[in-house]
Amino acid sequence: MLPVFGHTNPDTDAITSALVYARLLTRQGVPAQAYRLGELNFETPFVLREAGVEVPELLPKLPAGTPVALVDHNESAQSVPNLPELTVTRVVDHHKLGDLTTAQPAYLRFEPVGCTATILLGLHREARMPVERLDARLMLSAILSDTLHFRSPTTTPQDREAVAFLAPIAGVEDVGAYALAMFAAKSDLGDTPAETLLRMDYKVFPFGDPPQRWGLGVIETTNPAYVLGRQAELLAAMDRARAEEGLSGVLLSVVDILNETNLTLVLSATEEKVLREAFGVEVAGGRADLGNRISRKKQIVPALEAYFAPEA
Amino acid sequence: MLPVFGHTNPDTDAITSALVYARLLTRQGVPAQAYRLGELNFETPFVLREAGVEVPELLPKLPAGTPVALVDHNESAQSVPNLPELTVTRVVDHHKLGDLTTAQPAYLRFEPVGCTATILLGLHREARMPVERLDARLMLSAILSDTLHFRSPTTTPQDREAVAFLAPIAGVEDVGAYALAMFAAKSDLGDTPAETLLRMDYKVFPFGDPPQRWGLGVIETTNPAYVLGRQAELLAAMDRARAEEGLSGVLLSVVDILNETNLTLVLSATEEKVLREAFGVEVAGGRADLGNRISRKKQIVPALEAYFAPEA
Repeated sequence: MLPVFGHTNPDTDAITSALVYARLLTRQGVPAQAYRLGELNFETPFVLREAGVEVPELLPKLPAGTPVALVDHNESAQSVPNLPELTVTRVVDHHKLGDLTTAQPAYLRFEPVGCTATILLGLHREARMPVERLDARLMLSAILSDTLHFRSPTTTPQDREAVAFLAPIAGVEDVGAYALAMFAAKSDLGDTPAETLLRMDYKVFPFGDPPQRWGLGVIETTNPAYVLGRQAELLAAMDRARAEEGLSGVLLSVVDILNETNLTLVLSATEEKVLREAFGVEVAGGRADLGNRISRKKQIVPALEAYFAPEA
Repeated sequence: MLPVFGHTNPDTDAITSALVYARLLTRQGVPAQAYRLGELNFETPFVLREAGVEVPELLPKLPAGTPVALVDHNESAQSVPNLPELTVTRVVDHHKLGDLTTAQPAYLRFEPVGCTATILLGLHREARMPVERLDARLMLSAILSDTLHFRSPTTTPQDREAVAFLAPIAGVEDVGAYALAMFAAKSDLGDTPAETLLRMDYKVFPFGDPPQRWGLGVIETTNPAYVLGRQAELLAAMDRARAEEGLSGVLLSVVDILNETNLTLVLSATEEKVLREAFGVEVAGGRADLGNRISRKKQIVPALEAYFAPEA
């Protein structure tokens, strides 16, 4: 059984793409099983419950040399700790290519679209595999989640076309209402500890050469006032993360899904300087107003890459 | 016009895949132009002449930030010197993934098949683009060249299926006779200087950590006696290459296409030790008999990767 898994701190795309790709590979004669690399956020259980599918198991420690398939990520900092020892035979991803290498030729499928699930729909079509209702529902949910129902600048025409194609197969009549229900589930944070909030959608990136490691968290919510009301707790959690993970900086962006705005919490003078200089924004009250920069992948990471890039 | 190019010291796949992918992209609304990164070997002009297509121009120096598409390679050591400054937006390749990274999500299409052209045929099919006669002839030639007409262990069922599909479109009735004619053209080396012979199919690979750079040349021929008769000249050329390029070692394999054997020239005690220990073969008369290891990609490079890998 080929293990298939998405990134740590999994979001809906990381989980559902592992499920859908494992099912597709199995149908194609490559027995595969989906795993997760961490606890789910608050949106994904809603999606899995509505689809009637079990939460994938946590990936066990794999022996060196085990063949694996990655979905929705490729950088070692976002994967299992012993990724360099494993044999990556397949990757389906929509992120920039990081430090991945392979010892042998592999199957790599990267497309600059809004969601891994959009690529997976293409794989079904190319293989002339009819899309099953369960897979349609999972892929539809992932695309709505990753693109914030087409609000994110990462959205491409292929993502919109995929949703239009998948909705009737999935039996979702009102896509807008379904997306709002997903976002409400994601925003129902209750008394979740600040540590958990920070890590719900959190990735570590190396920037510059020699690389410094930055932790970049995002909380996408329909209720930003609630999250911002817990600013002091969240800053304390960011401070602990920086110390424990030996990071150069930590940013936590509170993204208002419906109004498409980003207020980013500012931990220290280090982050303040970088935010001012990389984005040209002002910092006040411990927050930087990043305006409509709501995509980490498309608007935050590239600006930081450019800021930290060595002079040519 | 998006520049599309294969690796340095181009072989038939590197040249024809650039031509075919540029034509496909252009038909798909992305104007593209094929280039080459060096002089052709003796097989490719035969293929282009038979197909009635011009030799692509040498790639000019591109300004930093220029978007480019790579075919048949991905490692910086086999590409343009300023690859890290360029913006790689597309890669179609069948080699292991090396040191490539991208600043933005890109279109990457890697499959573990015998030839880039086999992947390109798949791209035509997925896009429902009918394969034109010229493209069929170029893709057919590349697959026969890379797989040595299915003799190489890199050959996959997809490569065989592609040839069976392409031959009638290309108007090639006797595939075996066409392949022999290609190999004869490649083997008609005349009074080619030893420097040129060494570099006809020559790639530099980093092995180990910290990496040491090795130059690995292959001469695929139906007339190995001719090449081996020039052993002294070739060893002198290898010695110059090692000094000029600051390499840790240089290997030149003389591959008998029809009998599927590999005699590798041994430059010095360094290469002799590595050949003995990495492949368990004996060295005599300045040659190591590597038996039926005729694929650099599948049989030479992985053994050297493993040999130079740091202890886990």
